[in-house]
Amino acid sequence: MKTNNQPLHQLDAWQAAEALARRDILAVDLVRSCLDRIDQRDSEVHAFIQLNADAALALARTLDAGPVRGLLHGLPFGVKDLLDTADLPTAYGSPIYAGQQPRADAAAVALCREAGAVLLGKTVSTELANMTSGITRNPHNLQHTPGGSSSGSAAAVADGMLPLALGTQTAGSLIRPAAFCGVVGFKPSHNRVSRAGVKSLSETLDTIGGFGRSVRDVGLLGAVLTGDTRLADPRNFDDSTNSAPRIGLCATPDWSLADEDTQQAWAQAEKALAGHAQTFALPPELQNLVARQKAVQMFETARSLRHEHRHHAHQLSASLLTLLEDGMRISGETHAQNLLAVAQQRHVAAELFVDHDVLLAPSALGEAPAGLETTGDPLFCRGWTLLGLPCIHLPFTHGRQGLPVGLQLVGRFADDHRLLAAAHWVHQRLTR
Amino acid sequence: MKTNNQPLHQLDAWQAAEALARRDILAVDLVRSCLDRIDQRDSEVHAFIQLNADAALALARTLDAGPVRGLLHGLPFGVKDLLDTADLPTAYGSPIYAGQQPRADAAAVALCREAGAVLLGKTVSTELANMTSGITRNPHNLQHTPGGSSSGSAAAVADGMLPLALGTQTAGSLIRPAAFCGVVGFKPSHNRVSRAGVKSLSETLDTIGGFGRSVRDVGLLGAVLTGDTRLADPRNFDDSTNSAPRIGLCATPDWSLADEDTQQAWAQAEKALAGHAQTFALPPELQNLVARQKAVQMFETARSLRHEHRHHAHQLSASLLTLLEDGMRISGETHAQNLLAVAQQRHVAAELFVDHDVLLAPSALGEAPAGLETTGDPLFCRGWTLLGLPCIHLPFTHGRQGLPVGLQLVGRFADDHRLLAAAHWVHQRLTR
Repeated sequence: MKTNNQPLHQLDAWQAAEALARRDILAVDLVRSCLDRIDQRDSEVHAFIQLNADAALALARTLDAGPVRGLLHGLPFGVKDLLDTADLPTAYGSPIYAGQQPRADAAAVALCREAGAVLLGKTVSTELANMTSGITRNPHNLQHTPGGSSSGSAAAVADGMLPLALGTQTAGSLIRPAAFCGVVGFKPSHNRVSRAGVKSLSETLDTIGGFGRSVRDVGLLGAVLTGDTRLADPRNFDDSTNSAPRIGLCATPDWSLADEDTQQAWAQAEKALAGHAQTFALPPELQNLVARQKAVQMFETARSLRHEHRHHAHQLSASLLTLLEDGMRISGETHAQNLLAVAQQRHVAAELFVDHDVLLAPSALGEAPAGLETTGDPLFCRGWTLLGLPCIHLPFTHGRQGLPVGLQLVGRFADDHRLLAAAHWVHQRLTR
Repeated sequence: MKTNNQPLHQLDAWQAAEALARRDILAVDLVRSCLDRIDQRDSEVHAFIQLNADAALALARTLDAGPVRGLLHGLPFGVKDLLDTADLPTAYGSPIYAGQQPRADAAAVALCREAGAVLLGKTVSTELANMTSGITRNPHNLQHTPGGSSSGSAAAVADGMLPLALGTQTAGSLIRPAAFCGVVGFKPSHNRVSRAGVKSLSETLDTIGGFGRSVRDVGLLGAVLTGDTRLADPRNFDDSTNSAPRIGLCATPDWSLADEDTQQAWAQAEKALAGHAQTFALPPELQNLVARQKAVQMFETARSLRHEHRHHAHQLSASLLTLLEDGMRISGETHAQNLLAVAQQRHVAAELFVDHDVLLAPSALGEAPAGLETTGDPLFCRGWTLLGLPCIHLPFTHGRQGLPVGLQLVGRFADDHRLLAAAHWVHQRLTR
């Protein structure tokens, strides 16, 4: 069964949602198409840690026979294995939690299911959502990393195994894998989406979000996760009602570390957005975001994982152990000063959006690095995560090795719907 | 074995800690004294849901034979059953989670254990830390509520079963039971203590804290939980080095609801603190805190407990079901506006501490209400929780029914150590 001659598993989530609601396609066929794709490809990509095939097909048949349940009716989705699921084990990417069966779904999972989404499986997380790679490969080139820590979710959406998947970001774990895999990645404003039932690392930073193939796709997901229907408002994705945003081009203080591919994408965007965008530099109070983000993440992660560090050190990777040891060396007095500074910097960040609706910024240093030893550097994501601002990665070009490259847009706190409207407008111009 | 003629279980935590470090007393004797007290009293008070007696005695013997591990070396402590423990089941006060055995300790529990504390057992939480009472009774009068949701922790410390216990506050769940049970209750600044491994209700509000019998006791606990040793600095608890704070008397916009007992305590405090305190009114931007706190708590709790609501409604109390249903009716758009307003109000709150080091404010409407149907009204705690400010309840008098009454002090964000120093100074003058 096809729509516009595309196999079902390749449909954007919003297109599939419309076709499902009209009963032009059946959820069971969409689920089967995704499962077929997984069957063909996942022995190489390794996006999934666990599949839920029979239950997904059964639920899809039930959905096909009943009323439309919500915005995600009949859409298959994947869940990063950092989020609890009541019907599938949840191991947080760590042998410490192998086989753990939570009693409840994470809030984000429960909300997606209530909106009619069909859980297809759990996707690979790096070890406890930190920097030690899982088994997932980049679907565009299996010798390259998909990024992390939401590795499996990004790779599965990129490879057509799923239209939507949930992930989390503490430094750059949504935007970076979205960039490396060439999909849209959306990090909502901090604290708009409940983290209940998600392994906690750094409460100042941890944010639930997700992946899709278009801005409108992640708008559907975002509306369900935040309960704010404006994120899925069709007028935001319609050229007759969606007006041009005022864009600040914010290359950030670390721009000199962007490689040729990111620089090339930036030049391409400057050209495509000419007339709507101005160069914008962060004010002096927001120059040291990266160092502070690292200190906050390390302090908080070291405390959050104190039990694992003390009782399961032999089951932790050497790099995570080093991070935890370094984090324990940061004093609570320093952390108190950092929390005060973060509150002040988040206050200053509101002023970034007086003259601009959104900021365009780099997502990653360049293409996905070769090899699976590293998931790449989250440098360009750290500052925005610290500020708690909503971010969306837009893929639109390729680098010298043929891998995806794009940029992110950053919005005002709690203004996620306007970020998505602007992102749709920008993405259309970048991909023309 | 006695110190200053007091049975060991009656010692303040800091006194016991000093005696343990000097080896003047043994941890095993202190643990046994607490277990004896529990044995005598808990069939009436019902503070514990689960005891860990044999393991506690064994650990105490190990501690007595080894080096001093940290600030809490050899101190027995209790943990509200909302926090995960790797060696005791954790049910969150709900039949939905009966018998659940977590794989890891909550971060707060792990940090206390690392500092040498001995887990004596899990204490009663109200249902999912909301308003439906557990089985605990007020140790001062068994016909009265101990307050909630940290009911068992407050009652156990008040009754001499434990020197220290952990609890959590989302509206008034530390300060209110501390007031009703007549102990010191400490809510640190929001987000200074990791909530990893604690059942999540409202991430904007949820805060880990605890109970002791003196300000210095909760300073020990706070230093361990925040990693900030200033909270336990002996100079803060020594009259020769601790100077008088500037105190704002902040009766709050809801003062008219305080009953005669709270009014009497207030008058007593005004007299005792004369010369160091001035009347202080909240600025206009901070007048509507209570309504906003309720809306934020309801929205977030309804999402955090979405799985339980959808799949275990028959195991939830009628009052919690009503709260969840009301919470689901608040839109994500309204919540976005509330989050923006909270950020702005937290920014304004910094200005409260330009002319004052701390604010004195009511903790509860009056004495613990009779009956066990309600845990009392958290009205006077909601606003400070919304602002994320550190709070400490100071018991110092009794009401008309002979039950404890006191007041709370509120400090500047991330200035928990100065709040404790001021609280020690104030508490001494109130209890002279």
